[in-house]
Amino acid sequence: MRKPPTLLSLTIDIALLNLSHISDLSFLPDHVLLELFLRTLRAGKLTEKILKLFVATGKDEILSLISELNIQLILTPVLPTINIRDDEVDIVIGALHLDLTSFMEDWRAVFSRFHLIIVQDPDLKGDLKIPGGFSFDVYMKSDIESVVGSSSSSVVFSGYSCRYFGYLVSHKKYIISIDDDCIPAKDDKGELIDAVAQHITNLMTPATPFFFNTLYDPFRKGTDFVRGYPFSLRSGVQCGLSCGLWLNLADYDAPTQALKPGQRNSRFVDAVLTVPARAMLPVSGINIGFDRELVGPAMVPAFRLAKEGKFRWETVEDIWSGMCVKVICDHLGYGVKSGLPYVWRNERGNAVESLKKEWEGVKLMEEVVPFFQSMRLSQGAVTAEDCVIEMAAAVKERLEPLDPVFARASEAMVEWVKLWKVVTSRLSNSAA
Amino acid sequence: MRKPPTLLSLTIDIALLNLSHISDLSFLPDHVLLELFLRTLRAGKLTEKILKLFVATGKDEILSLISELNIQLILTPVLPTINIRDDEVDIVIGALHLDLTSFMEDWRAVFSRFHLIIVQDPDLKGDLKIPGGFSFDVYMKSDIESVVGSSSSSVVFSGYSCRYFGYLVSHKKYIISIDDDCIPAKDDKGELIDAVAQHITNLMTPATPFFFNTLYDPFRKGTDFVRGYPFSLRSGVQCGLSCGLWLNLADYDAPTQALKPGQRNSRFVDAVLTVPARAMLPVSGINIGFDRELVGPAMVPAFRLAKEGKFRWETVEDIWSGMCVKVICDHLGYGVKSGLPYVWRNERGNAVESLKKEWEGVKLMEEVVPFFQSMRLSQGAVTAEDCVIEMAAAVKERLEPLDPVFARASEAMVEWVKLWKVVTSRLSNSAA
Repeated sequence: MRKPPTLLSLTIDIALLNLSHISDLSFLPDHVLLELFLRTLRAGKLTEKILKLFVATGKDEILSLISELNIQLILTPVLPTINIRDDEVDIVIGALHLDLTSFMEDWRAVFSRFHLIIVQDPDLKGDLKIPGGFSFDVYMKSDIESVVGSSSSSVVFSGYSCRYFGYLVSHKKYIISIDDDCIPAKDDKGELIDAVAQHITNLMTPATPFFFNTLYDPFRKGTDFVRGYPFSLRSGVQCGLSCGLWLNLADYDAPTQALKPGQRNSRFVDAVLTVPARAMLPVSGINIGFDRELVGPAMVPAFRLAKEGKFRWETVEDIWSGMCVKVICDHLGYGVKSGLPYVWRNERGNAVESLKKEWEGVKLMEEVVPFFQSMRLSQGAVTAEDCVIEMAAAVKERLEPLDPVFARASEAMVEWVKLWKVVTSRLSNSAA
Repeated sequence: MRKPPTLLSLTIDIALLNLSHISDLSFLPDHVLLELFLRTLRAGKLTEKILKLFVATGKDEILSLISELNIQLILTPVLPTINIRDDEVDIVIGALHLDLTSFMEDWRAVFSRFHLIIVQDPDLKGDLKIPGGFSFDVYMKSDIESVVGSSSSSVVFSGYSCRYFGYLVSHKKYIISIDDDCIPAKDDKGELIDAVAQHITNLMTPATPFFFNTLYDPFRKGTDFVRGYPFSLRSGVQCGLSCGLWLNLADYDAPTQALKPGQRNSRFVDAVLTVPARAMLPVSGINIGFDRELVGPAMVPAFRLAKEGKFRWETVEDIWSGMCVKVICDHLGYGVKSGLPYVWRNERGNAVESLKKEWEGVKLMEEVVPFFQSMRLSQGAVTAEDCVIEMAAAVKERLEPLDPVFARASEAMVEWVKLWKVVTSRLSNSAA
């Protein structure tokens, strides 16, 4: 049998109903006041007026609670409702194959409400096949040349790097980019995953790079900050980059793939987390979203292997630009998230064949990782552009002596920022 | 229809079968040699003798592959088979309640093969009720006093801190400790989770604190290091601490619990990860395992709130010792993991009542976290004991001026290390 409510509890119920007619609460005993405040919060009745009423009591416990819970006069909800505005998002697809029909049909439910930027690999001859019912712009070799000039030496948009041209010409706040050998995955309940919605959620909710939350993303429904998490860090920071994952074929390198050809990733890990500040990660370009306004210039196609190929494991451009973004986010106080959303990945290619090309990337990583781990930017670098320029100088100074491949990376970083500025000012002029 | 095998493939099959009779491989073309080597690896046939045969070819691609995959003459398997030796593990239970019957019955399948150290909260009067069929030692107030003396001022073993006495008197390599209000949880397939086996697996497989792997624990079956992960970091480091999580009632603080009294954690996140170096986390003592030989002295019951209570949210001793361990692991090159295993947590208590006590802990955390984040130990500190002593001095210097509560924490750290040395030498003398 349920216990009958206490008189106090009933009184508080009534007070809660009539709170908007009460003009003074300071006569209440401390424990009643605290209980009333918590019940008000739980009932979702804490308006600006009522908050002022509680503040006016001047009681220590109430003031501490307000301060610790970071309740401010302009209330922001703890769990933001994500409204994706279609005009804030571009989906950028690097077309490494002419026939995009099945890829785009598979993604129709997710992609069709957004604008698509499709960039054809300039090495790919022929006309793209794109099904109807999408809003898109296609950029081809001639479009690329008209923007960057045909003599552009260091910034190269071939292969997987073609998508970076899409990042350049977009003028939306958010970019989502997914490889054309991926289709939507299903979650552990068999539901189709909306990868775009998840990336946008990751980007629009705060990141928490300065202290690790053991229950992962504290802004997700059903979870929160764990005991001991400092309240001063609970408002979090803006998220710059969202790195999604892969079911079926994961993003392994050629040696791992060659050694375990039957390995498939079937583990759906239902989590998003902020990668802590100063920790580096291998960002994969297969399935990402980023805030173009915050970190766009850092998504730079700078690092190109001599034998770069058309399979993911034959490239490291995304690993390099991912570390650029991470260093810059750490410096400027933004976050990088990893985890959901998953995509289902069908890879082609023969890893054993690729092994012959891959060693260069694998070896260079041994120099690249310590470089980024120890990179510290100056206080003068206050935008992503500033940061990339500073890093380009450091690449030249510290990495170029080790291998000539880094010379071109440094040049490409400088040239990319120039391009970014030119294209951005052109776009804002034409919009004006 | 399946394609028939190629002549080359058949030849390699035969060669693989007869590899132990072949004394020279150097006449083989490079691509055949590479394929044969990979097939040998996949078939699990790479013995020391066969490895030497491949090395003797002197072929660059083979030598690179051997080096990149970190294959050494004394072969260690990439996925270690975890054999838990019963005599390497102590399960330490802090008894905050006299009747342990239902707690221990619920855990019988998991606990019964191990030795248990049960430490009765010295504030708890009466005799413990413990069911039969377990191997255990009980320590009571009188036992504690006989080891540490009744006048021990700063190291206090009451409340949740009683379990630290168990850490002190154990002489096993691994300690697992679980709060007495937790029962075994079920995984997402409805299978009962063996929390001890998972903690031991976490502790016995390498940790990877120096680069974040986006597919979480690379040593777990079905996963690996992601493309771009430096090969030089793939052997990992020893794991010092394994932090498990909670289903049902999560480990929130009193304000969060009071604000969301109906919140339950139902998300089973199927992952273990290494918390990157230099990132701090809120370690919860509810469900942990640690390597006593590596970090035991760092598990220090040092930080006691003036109004510490018998509910988790009224304590911060575990948060403090967790940050001690994390700083020490970062310094000595060990890892801290977080994630699996989950336990099912049934909490008692009234969070609103506890709110009156909790503020002290919440406020002090704002000083404690920056202190540990910026703590750097000297090169002279080469053991966990050295590190704790150095940190105690820093606590005295930097935190004591802010609040007298830190003075006792500093003293307790010094005293704890003394106790640890005395008890350890006593144990090793009695074993000799």
